[in-house]
Parts: sequence; C-alpha cells; structure tokens
Amino acid sequence: MYRTKTCGELRMSNVGEIVTLAGWVQRTRKMGGMTFVDLRDRYGITQIVFNNEVDAALCEKANQLGREFVIQIKGQVAERSNKNAKMPTGDIEIIASELTVLSPSITPPFTIEDVSDGGDDLRMKYRYLDLRRSVVRRNLELRHNMAILVRNFLDAKDFIEVETPILIGSTPEGARDFVVPSRMNPGQFYALPQSPQTLKQLLMVAGFDRYFQIAKCFRDEDLRADRQPEFTQIDCEMSFVDQEDVIEIFEDLARHLFKEVRGVELPAKLQQMTWHEAMRLYGSDKPDLRFGMTFVEVMDVMKKGKFSVFDDAAYIGGICVPGCADYTRKQLDQLTDFVKRPQVGAKGLVYVKYNADGTIKSSVDKFYDQNDLLELKQAMGANDGDLVLILSGDNANKTRVQLCSLRLEMGERLGLRDKDKFECLWIVDFPLFEWSDEEQRLMATHHPFTMPNPDDIPLLDTHPEQVRAKAYDFVCNGIEVGGGSLRIHDGELQAKMFKILGFTPEQAMAQFGFLINAFKFGAPPHAGLAFGFDRFVSIMAGLDSIRDCIAFPKNNSGRDVMLDAPSPIAQAQLDELYLNVDEARVKALGK
Amino acid sequence: MYRTKTCGELRMSNVGEIVTLAGWVQRTRKMGGMTFVDLRDRYGITQIVFNNEVDAALCEKANQLGREFVIQIKGQVAERSNKNAKMPTGDIEIIASELTVLSPSITPPFTIEDVSDGGDDLRMKYRYLDLRRSVVRRNLELRHNMAILVRNFLDAKDFIEVETPILIGSTPEGARDFVVPSRMNPGQFYALPQSPQTLKQLLMVAGFDRYFQIAKCFRDEDLRADRQPEFTQIDCEMSFVDQEDVIEIFEDLARHLFKEVRGVELPAKLQQMTWHEAMRLYGSDKPDLRFGMTFVEVMDVMKKGKFSVFDDAAYIGGICVPGCADYTRKQLDQLTDFVKRPQVGAKGLVYVKYNADGTIKSSVDKFYDQNDLLELKQAMGANDGDLVLILSGDNANKTRVQLCSLRLEMGERLGLRDKDKFECLWIVDFPLFEWSDEEQRLMATHHPFTMPNPDDIPLLDTHPEQVRAKAYDFVCNGIEVGGGSLRIHDGELQAKMFKILGFTPEQAMAQFGFLINAFKFGAPPHAGLAFGFDRFVSIMAGLDSIRDCIAFPKNNSGRDVMLDAPSPIAQAQLDELYLNVDEARVKALGK
Repeated sequence: MYRTKTCGELRMSNVGEIVTLAGWVQRTRKMGGMTFVDLRDRYGITQIVFNNEVDAALCEKANQLGREFVIQIKGQVAERSNKNAKMPTGDIEIIASELTVLSPSITPPFTIEDVSDGGDDLRMKYRYLDLRRSVVRRNLELRHNMAILVRNFLDAKDFIEVETPILIGSTPEGARDFVVPSRMNPGQFYALPQSPQTLKQLLMVAGFDRYFQIAKCFRDEDLRADRQPEFTQIDCEMSFVDQEDVIEIFEDLARHLFKEVRGVELPAKLQQMTWHEAMRLYGSDKPDLRFGMTFVEVMDVMKKGKFSVFDDAAYIGGICVPGCADYTRKQLDQLTDFVKRPQVGAKGLVYVKYNADGTIKSSVDKFYDQNDLLELKQAMGANDGDLVLILSGDNANKTRVQLCSLRLEMGERLGLRDKDKFECLWIVDFPLFEWSDEEQRLMATHHPFTMPNPDDIPLLDTHPEQVRAKAYDFVCNGIEVGGGSLRIHDGELQAKMFKILGFTPEQAMAQFGFLINAFKFGAPPHAGLAFGFDRFVSIMAGLDSIRDCIAFPKNNSGRDVMLDAPSPIAQAQLDELYLNVDEARVKALGK
Repeated sequence: MYRTKTCGELRMSNVGEIVTLAGWVQRTRKMGGMTFVDLRDRYGITQIVFNNEVDAALCEKANQLGREFVIQIKGQVAERSNKNAKMPTGDIEIIASELTVLSPSITPPFTIEDVSDGGDDLRMKYRYLDLRRSVVRRNLELRHNMAILVRNFLDAKDFIEVETPILIGSTPEGARDFVVPSRMNPGQFYALPQSPQTLKQLLMVAGFDRYFQIAKCFRDEDLRADRQPEFTQIDCEMSFVDQEDVIEIFEDLARHLFKEVRGVELPAKLQQMTWHEAMRLYGSDKPDLRFGMTFVEVMDVMKKGKFSVFDDAAYIGGICVPGCADYTRKQLDQLTDFVKRPQVGAKGLVYVKYNADGTIKSSVDKFYDQNDLLELKQAMGANDGDLVLILSGDNANKTRVQLCSLRLEMGERLGLRDKDKFECLWIVDFPLFEWSDEEQRLMATHHPFTMPNPDDIPLLDTHPEQVRAKAYDFVCNGIEVGGGSLRIHDGELQAKMFKILGFTPEQAMAQFGFLINAFKFGAPPHAGLAFGFDRFVSIMAGLDSIRDCIAFPKNNSGRDVMLDAPSPIAQAQLDELYLNVDEARVKALGK
C-alpha cells in the first residue's frame, strides 16, 4: 500500500501522527520560505507543507512539482494556524519529511476544478481528466449508490436479478437494432437488445415470479439531444399482480431512493392522472407539476363569430401566467417567436394583459370588447396583474403540445422549475395504439405485449384507437423516468394484437414465435416496469444532461471521441465475417 | 394481487386461514373421491384438496387440470392426516373452495422435475420450461445472491461500481472481437469489450481509486467446451496498492462468499505457489489441491542407459497412486489409451505396480531390475499396494501437462475430486511472456499492461522469456476462477512492452493511444483482478458446466436455439449499414 491514510480522513484527533499519503497535486504555492501543496485523491484534499529552513532540498523538490503530478509524501499531522472551515481536513496539515514522485504529468488541457475552462469536446476527449473533477465524479458515485440501493431494495422484496443475454435476435418492431455479424454462423447476425422485454416475459413463464436487472439496452436511433446509443434500465417484471400492485412496489422504490439519496419525503400515495387528463391540463403525458398554469379550454368563451382564427379552431386553450401583466412588447414578441419556432410549430400567440390597475390590454383588442375579455378573465381564473396566453389550432392535441412548450417556457422564465423540488406522479390509461402518419397504420404506444383495459376489449374490433392500455408511466418534474404495463399472457389476445398492428400470422410467428409458443405452456398473468436509470440518476443529481452521469458517454454522432470509436476494421476481419463494406456508397457520402 | 400467500409459506400455524394461492399444476391424482393437486410456484409446493362429496362440480373441474396449467385457488388451510416431512409445507393442505384456470398448458416436451427426461437440446430450446425446474432455478438464485454479496462487500470497502461502455473500439491484441457496424458512421465498426481492461485503467488515471463492475464481456472464439461468447466478470481495479494488497482484499471477498454461500471457512491465509512450483508439482498453473499425487521427477533414477525412451527424454516424472497396485491389465490399458488420446498427446505410459505382497510388476521389467524399481519406489515415496505411473518426453512442460491430465483422471477415478470440498490457492510469479508457435513471437501471458517483476526488468532486453510478471491467479479445485496483475503505469516501460510484443510505435499508438496519452497526465500505481463470475457460481453450485448458471446460454455454435439467433437480416438493414454479405462465399460453405 502506497499510503496509510487517504487525503480525506485526517482531523484534529490525528495531530502528531506520522502518515503517508498519495495522490495528485491540485496546486502548489510558495509563501515566506514555505511551499504548500494541496494533495488530492477521491476522498478529499489535504494540505502538505514543506519548510525551506528545515529541509531546503526537499522543499526545492516540492517546488518542481507541477499540477496533476502523482506523488507520495510522508510527514507528521499538525494543527493549522489558519484553519479552512470549508474543507473537512481544513483544521490540519502535514509537515512533510519525504516526497516521492510516482508519476509526473504534462500540463492538462483544461483545469481540474469544479468550474473548468474545458469545453465539452475537450472534456470528452480527455474524459479521464474530466472525471478527476469532483463535480463529475460525484455523479458517478451517486449512480453507484443508487444502484446499490435499488438492488438491496428489490432483493429484500424477493426479486431476483437475472442477466439476460446481450447477443440476441433482431426484432424489426420498435426502434432500429444494432446488429452483430456472427463469424461462426456466416451471413447471420445477432442483435443487441433494445430492452430485455421478451426475455423477462419468458422468465415469468419460467416461474421466476419477481425479476429485475439493471440492464444495458441499445437503440440505433438518430441521437436527439440527450439520447445515448447505449443506456441503462432498471428493468423489472412480476407475476400474479395487477396494475396497483406494480405501482405500489415501484412507488415504494422511488420513495426509498428519494429519501435515501436526497432526504426528500414523497407523499404517502402519489397522484395518478389519466393520459387524457394530462393532455387536457398540461398538453403532455409527462406533466411538470412543480408549478401550476394548467390549461383552460376557452372554446365557449372565444368562439363568438368575432375572430375567424378562433371561430375555425378545433381547440382554443390558454394558461394564466401569474404576475406577468407587465411583460413588455419585446418580451411578448419573444414569446410569439418562441411558439412559432419549428420545434413548437404554432401559427401565433394571443395574449391578454390583466393589468394591476384593472385595465386590460390584448393582442385581440380589435376583435373582442372589454366584456368578452372579462368573461375570459373569469374563465381563466386570472387576477389583476396576470398575463393570459392563448393558442389555438385545428388539431386539439397538437395545439395542446404547443401550449405545453409555452407553459414550460414560462415556468423556466419564472424560475419555477426548481431542481431541488421533486413532483412525481403516475400517468395511467394510455391509449393502446397511436396512429403513425409515417407508417400509415396503428402502432403500439408502448409495445405489442401491452394488455388492453379489459373494459375496452370489445372496442378492439370496432374502434381500436379508443382502447385504453393497462399501462403506466412514472413521471418526475416533467420527465418520464419509468414506464410499464400489464402484459398479455393469452395467446389468442396476443394474436389479435399482432393482427391489428399489421402482422400476418407468419410474420408474427417468425419474429415472436418463441414467445407465442411459450404462452402455450401455462403463462402467468404478469406485469412490469422499467426505469431509465441514466435519467433517474441525472434527476437526482440535478443534471441537465444524462451524459454527466455516464462514465464514458458518446457524442451526438454516436462516437466515443476518447477511444476514437467506431473505426474502420481490417479487411481480414471483414473476410472472416463474410462481409464487404459498400465502399462506393460510403465514398459517395463524402465522409 | 392474484394470491394472498405463496406456495412455500404455509405452516401448521396457518391452519384455519382462508387463503388464495396461484401457481402451476405440478401433478394431480385422484384417490377415493378426492382429487389432490400439487401447486407449485418459485417458493415451494402446496397440496390442494378437492372433495367430490362436498363439491362435485369443483372436483370435476380439478380433474380436468393438466400438468403446468396456471391456476388460482381459494380455500382453507387444514392439517394433513398423512404429513410429508420432506416438504416445508408438508404438514398442511388447502381444502379448495374456488378454482380459476388462469392459463392452460399443452403437454410440455419434457417433465418439469428435478430429474427430467429432456435432453440438452430440448431443454435449451424450451429453456423457459427448463428454468421451471427447481434444480435449475436454484442456480440462478445462487447467482443473484452471490452478486448481491459481492456488491455489498466491495461497496463496504469503498469500491465504486462504474458501468463502462459495451460499444467500444476494436483491439486486435488478444482474442477476436465481436464487431458492430455503425450506421451513423458508415464503414466503421464498434467492438464489444473482451473485458473492461483499458477502461478500468483509465478510471484509475481518473482517480477513482477503487473500481469494480460485474461486467459482460465478449469473445468471438471457437467455443471449446464450457465457453460462452458472452460471459460475466467481477472486474476490479485499485490504485496505490501492491500485489499483497490486492491479494488480501480479494482473498477476503472469496472467504466471505464461501462462508456465506456454502458455510465453508477458507484458511486465514491462502497458500501462494509460484508458477514454476505449480508446473513442477502439478504440471498446471491451476492445480487441483483436493488430493495429492504430486509429481516426482525421476530423471536421475531412470536414466541408466537401460531404456532409450527414458535416456533420450528431457523430462521423466511420475505420480504415485495410492492403493492401486491391483489395477488390472485392462484398467492399465485404459490409462495408456487415455494418455495417448490426442487431447493429452503422450506417446505411452510406464507403470510400476508395488504389490501389497511386496512383489513388483512393471511395464518396463525387461529394461530395469528389481533394484532399479526399488530405487524408484523410494524416490516416489511409494508404499506396498501403490501404483506408480510415469510419463516422459522431449519437452519438459508439455510432458508435465500430460502428466497433469493423468493425475486428474486418477483423482476422478478415485473419487477425490469432491464437489463439496474447496481447495483454493494463489498462483504467482507467472512468466510475463509466452512463446507462440503459431505467431512465432512472444505474446503477453496475461495482457500487454502487466507489470514485470521489478527485479527482472534488466532481463527485458536480454532474456524477456525469463521475466516474471507481477501477476496472480486465484485457483479453486483446479479451476482458474480469477486472475490479475499489477499494471504498468509508466509510459516508457509500456512502450518497451509494446516493442517486445512486436508493435511498431505507430501500431501501439493507433491501438492504445488513448491509454498511452492518459499515462502522460499523472497515472497512479494500480493493480486489479477479475473473477470469472459464471465459473465462480458454477463451482459454488457444484455444476459441471457454466451453462446451467446462465439463464439463456448459447450452444457450441454460438446459437441461442430458443430465440433462433443469430439469423439473417433484411437487405434493407444491410443497406442502411453500407454492408453486403459475401453470399457466394457463404454458399460455398454449403451451410
């Protein structure tokens, strides 16, 4: 062992002890014949003192140390004259008697401090240096602690962690698979799992009763902001349970994590909101409940044959922004620009300022009189001083989604999206299917194994789009942290689902034959849930991106810039796999 | 919830309670107007009774149940008249009042019993049924328990579990990589990690100090018996430590696991044996210490100019098999056939029977006289009644390896390889390099990052083949369960290693540039170890193969016969990846 103590543990009670420490040079400074070195390791920082009068040679050696040198020092713990209350070790220092350089360092490309001068690209290229920064490392420590908490919680509830394979078969339903050519089976490919969904269902058929896994999942999607090609799920499945049983146990898990990690007590029972209610009030299936400004539909109030935009609209709804009647013309123009951005897609924004002095000013003053706007004021529950913002459109849910963006923007502007506040709820009663404009067919909202609400099964044949799913999402602060469903365990119902989704029986069999067959041998009723672990950690850590709770993340092109992966491979490797790269097409890309 | 109790928890104290159970029908039998159903779930089996006199319709419904139907029953717990002491629930039964079939079953392809009539292929194809057998499921439960024990042990010792990426870069050194084409980076490939070796070293450079991960690893090797293309490691790395520190902590981990899982106390300090000693005494770097029969080298005794085979040999060694002098000619012929099998590769076997009556009979009686054989007896430490078996050859270590096979075969025949006995030791002082006949160059015995023994560094330039590594393997019962080494943390020494291994500086930089660069920024001395988790579990479970402690294993062709993976993929998928399968060559294989 190169040390007898870490750089984080020495206190006044250790004064007088001879200790050996090892770590990185955080900084050095010379002052009045003394050289001070801040020595850093994972556990903290300890001040080392070299006295030129006592040992000039040793002090000179210390003066040669650069940032990030790895050194070992021996010395005696002493009380500091000027204590540093901000550091746990701030009461003491080490009077050094020996110094060994274990490993020198060239100058790092950015400073290893909580606030670094390194940009994102540089930090990722030298991720091993970025991870030395305690603000980054703490996220990984939190991730480890959460994983331990999750595992011990579920273990205590009789869940078994089962490792499912990473090399499985490709299933075209869902997102795009990463594939892996098999050398031993030429011309054939494994796929990396998008989730262990079907495998965990097989474990229920196998009688495992309660399964979990903190599992790596893979999706070859074009990477929108804050997606990673590989990500981690807390993946769970239970047998002989109903929706409320699953919700109860995983609500308890979430409660446990919030309590242990953040000291936050979630309510004894979380709110459950139907998907329709969430869309109606928040325009989102993952509403941020840290603030109000719920939607008010004002069709009756505004449809008066006075303003054609509203008269023709399929939906008119607004939010009441408290205390913002004094918004300037410039601010209101910014909001109009905001809703007209392609990412939001509204055609325009109507505002009504209910001024503190009782006057009213709106962007539709030429269409509506004071009485109309007072009627609106009442409908919106607005007070003097409030700003009402209204969107309309010819597709109700699309307009609601636009209004949701506006609501979140206002929450952001008013500082209502506090990262230290946590508002969690369940969204239930999702539609079983959603229409895909792209594919021109119904798609499974979650996946093809989701159980329809038994009350709605008659609608499967007549109005499948109205069928509710036995599905539930766990939402925190406007982010979908987890989701799950009851699963179909009946072969006939599953066959009907595949049919509605446009599978021929042959296609269904080719892709999911193993599951369809398994259900013939006594499948228990089962249900499950998966939390996005990266997302969960990032919320707990108060991060804007999941990237900083991942040790070695990939960039938006799916590249690991530190490892410089992916990269071309040797022709010999391709030959062994019976593969050729279509070089002509690759060249045509000009990459 | 479909049940109020599980099938494993009811006892005499529950008699009189009304309960609801759910599970699988293990078996049914009719007896004197009663129908008995053994109901099974993960937690146990409970007997359910249907009385024809009380409720004929319900009883008739029970009579229709087939094996593996999933049912729910309600009833009252009653004391059994004929108790079954073999079952934890054997004192009680449930007098059923309600029965619901949740899911019927067709007849399973094999019996769901501890001893099944299913062959290996059938069991793998229907693995979800195989996993219903408690003997199989218990292995997975053990695996889960061991993982929890490992994680909590290491967490308590300040190790952080860090997930390293699965999509990394390809490194030609070592075994063959699985590669993953990148759609977003056409013509480029990720590789799946053979181990997180370089990434965990980067975590040490990052100051993580103590890292672990229960990590999936991938090797595209031709699958010899009991290898899997994906396997799991307990992967660990520590900074500022020396060999003894690593050995101590992971010996403690092993001690903890043996104690908790098997109730076995390992010695306070495990034996450490040098690689040379292990080869000399056991012909193996993973000796099975559950029994003796250590090698005795008998060059001096047998080289007498009497028997040319021995006179020309570079090595002559034998084992003394206690009490086997009465082996018949047939048995001795079997042993000769055994050592001549291509897997062993010896040219022949010399035996000497020291009979109980003091007479001696050998296969070399025409070359050696009684005095020679008595001299051998003494050298071998043989007693009357013992059988001495001798091999010779022109390559000492190759002959030792053959003799090792013979020793293990004799241990097997004598029942000395007891699965409930555990003999663990460390093998240390491995050679740093080994000569590859295939590649005609020195190869790293472990990997290119292994630290040479500091005493042997001068030999690197002159006699690299004599250099000892700071490497250590954890061996149990003749199986290498874990291994690790001190790592090089000095750029110059690492460069020298790459040079000896035949890398040009450019090649080294192209493949390991990220690590070489990282070492420039202050790398701490570090060391690590990885246990083969599948192997460790299989030893603890007393299994012959790692397959039965893996939920969904692959067969010797790397296929998952349940999922039918790998499989061909659509041309559209290949097009997106800018890849073509070389169909002509695939067809030429005739597959």
